[in-house]
Amino acid sequence: MTEKNDPFGVREGEISAALPETFDASLYFIGRIRTPWKDRKDCPKNAGQSRASGTVCTIELDPRWAPGLKDVKTCSHLVVLYWMDRSRRDLVVQVPGHYKAARGTFALRSPVRPNPIAMSVVQLVKIEGNILSVIGLDCLDGTPLLDLKPYFVSTDAIPEAKVGWHADRNDA
Amino acid sequence: MTEKNDPFGVREGEISAALPETFDASLYFIGRIRTPWKDRKDCPKNAGQSRASGTVCTIELDPRWAPGLKDVKTCSHLVVLYWMDRSRRDLVVQVPGHYKAARGTFALRSPVRPNPIAMSVVQLVKIEGNILSVIGLDCLDGTPLLDLKPYFVSTDAIPEAKVGWHADRNDA
Repeated sequence: MTEKNDPFGVREGEISAALPETFDASLYFIGRIRTPWKDRKDCPKNAGQSRASGTVCTIELDPRWAPGLKDVKTCSHLVVLYWMDRSRRDLVVQVPGHYKAARGTFALRSPVRPNPIAMSVVQLVKIEGNILSVIGLDCLDGTPLLDLKPYFVSTDAIPEAKVGWHADRNDA
Repeated sequence: MTEKNDPFGVREGEISAALPETFDASLYFIGRIRTPWKDRKDCPKNAGQSRASGTVCTIELDPRWAPGLKDVKTCSHLVVLYWMDRSRRDLVVQVPGHYKAARGTFALRSPVRPNPIAMSVVQLVKIEGNILSVIGLDCLDGTPLLDLKPYFVSTDAIPEAKVGWHADRNDA
């Protein structure tokens, strides 16, 4: 574990871990996410901002997996897992540009994490063949898709949940 | 894509896809989940049943990543991503044992999927060092951990979401 401030993207106060020498499991990219955002600076600040804007993005599922969409049209909302393929994986404490405070990686939704899997809850607008139109994504165009799941209120909706550091921040 | 009923675990009505020849990305197991359940038949039927029982499970984060827990104690609930390492990955239509109907993989929360990443929302009870105690997991003891994220009501809680096939089912 090292603490440093180098020119390769580690900010003052950030801490990196030595990555393991080997991987433990492997993923298939099962499709691609199409969004209007070609550059990170153009992306919405977060999924909430994207949802508020009502921007419709599309998810192109590889035809190999398309039979797996049976019954999905009956879901109003989906959990989308995708791969933040441009993110470094070694930071355990990081300073997000818009917060200016050092936070633990597991207290953040930053794409920078040991396994850069993002999770977004989206509203399903329509499905045509292997193409899903959804509202609520905030990622770059071309982002690799990992999974789609039905969103169940009984287990996934916790309206009373709190993120203390976020509620208390004075740096937003 | 084949449709078959063979003795190796594919039920009538299930459809398997040919898996891609290569993988696209790789994962680190960043810890292990400890639960009271050593066999699949002993696991709760789902995360809701586990939460209702109040069973406290523990998440053992590898010490390498422990600094990433900074600020996590301020979160009431976490998103846990973990790897269902005993699951086949080729079924696109499947017949879950407790529903008896063929459903698309992406309309189910079954561990059987191209990338067997499970997502559970848990209540955080306490953190001691690199060990988190949580309520709401339903997986086997020893399940590999992939990620922990803060649960944000603003983007993750959708109390009005519906899963049509589940609401309409007559096979539960």
